[in-house]
Amino acid sequence: MSAIAELSIFPLDKGESVSLYVSEAVKIIEASGLDHQLGPMGTCFEGDWDEVFNVAKECMDAMKNDCNRVYMVLKVDFRAGKDNRMKEKIASVKKTLGKD
Amino acid sequence: MSAIAELSIFPLDKGESVSLYVSEAVKIIEASGLDHQLGPMGTCFEGDWDEVFNVAKECMDAMKNDCNRVYMVLKVDFRAGKDNRMKEKIASVKKTLGKD
Amino acid sequence: MSAIAELSIFPLDKGESVSLYVSEAVKIIEASGLDHQLGPMGTCFEGDWDEVFNVAKECMDAMKNDCNRVYMVLKVDFRAGKDNRMKEKIASVKKTLGKD
Amino acid sequence: MSAIAELSIFPLDKGESVSLYVSEAVKIIEASGLDHQLGPMGTCFEGDWDEVFNVAKECMDAMKNDCNRVYMVLKVDFRAGKDNRMKEKIASVKKTLGKD
Repeated sequence: MSAIAELSIFPLDKGESVSLYVSEAVKIIEASGLDHQLGPMGTCFEGDWDEVFNVAKECMDAMKNDCNRVYMVLKVDFRAGKDNRMKEKIASVKKTLGKD
Repeated sequence: MSAIAELSIFPLDKGESVSLYVSEAVKIIEASGLDHQLGPMGTCFEGDWDEVFNVAKECMDAMKNDCNRVYMVLKVDFRAGKDNRMKEKIASVKKTLGKD
Repeated sequence: MSAIAELSIFPLDKGESVSLYVSEAVKIIEASGLDHQLGPMGTCFEGDWDEVFNVAKECMDAMKNDCNRVYMVLKVDFRAGKDNRMKEKIASVKKTLGKD
Repeated sequence: MSAIAELSIFPLDKGESVSLYVSEAVKIIEASGLDHQLGPMGTCFEGDWDEVFNVAKECMDAMKNDCNRVYMVLKVDFRAGKDNRMKEKIASVKKTLGKD
């Protein structure tokens, strides 16, 4: 039973370059111990639904302490009866493409 | 200090028509007492960040009890020092368009 | 056969208040003649898929002329064999909630 | 001048397992020749805005031929004056984290 989250979160009041703030969120995700993967448009992480949602909340909790306006997009794919789906989903697509 | 959330949540294992499940999420949002607005692609609601995030969590908690696979997209716009922003944001755009 | 789009688009290099730029996108959507609905977190509009996608493109085309960095989230719900779904989707949820 | 897109697209009328359909979209992205990166919740690709948007459109064009209902979430991060940002964005966050 797992939830995969993809979190994009950044300030709107800090100008065009926001990687410093994004890094703080990534630190929180790393510190959670959940399986995670950094991407160009967001960070994915996987675990029990309660854990996953809590980590997303911590990222906003931290960023809103430093920033006046924060935008967040959180996608979640919950599926019962499966684990370690982050790697498995990519493997499944690659297999269909004849690349495994 | 307010957070506006826009929540889209639906099952992937219940076929093409999902309004029954969507309605359960809307019920939870309505029961929260938060200011909310039903839209064609999701439901917006506004309040303190903690409340708002908790309501989104309750929607997933409920849907994953009934469904094997659930997809969620949650956008949040947090802004310090402002309240009642759902109506104000639309009014601000309409004013710029000369429609207030 | 219809596509409903929900478009959120805003600059990242213009500071905290972006309603002036958002209004330009809403003007383009209105000028398209497509059925549309302004919301607190984005604007929904409905039509043939090609038209809908083209209107979303025009919004970015315009905003990137004025702004150095632009963020966009576009959701699309395509469904064959149905029209006028924006109103129908909301009505269907309200009916289930006993509010029609 | 580049746009990075992150595309999540899947059918709602084909049941719980959709990797076969997702693979078709990934094939289209690969065939475009754009720099791209497969992720657990979507595929990122980068290029000129017109190219990027056109590739996203082709993915929906193809999937709606095979499926009655399709859901898509497209995020775009457009930034003038920069290229090869997919790798650079991740490198920038890693550097801040002391991991480069």
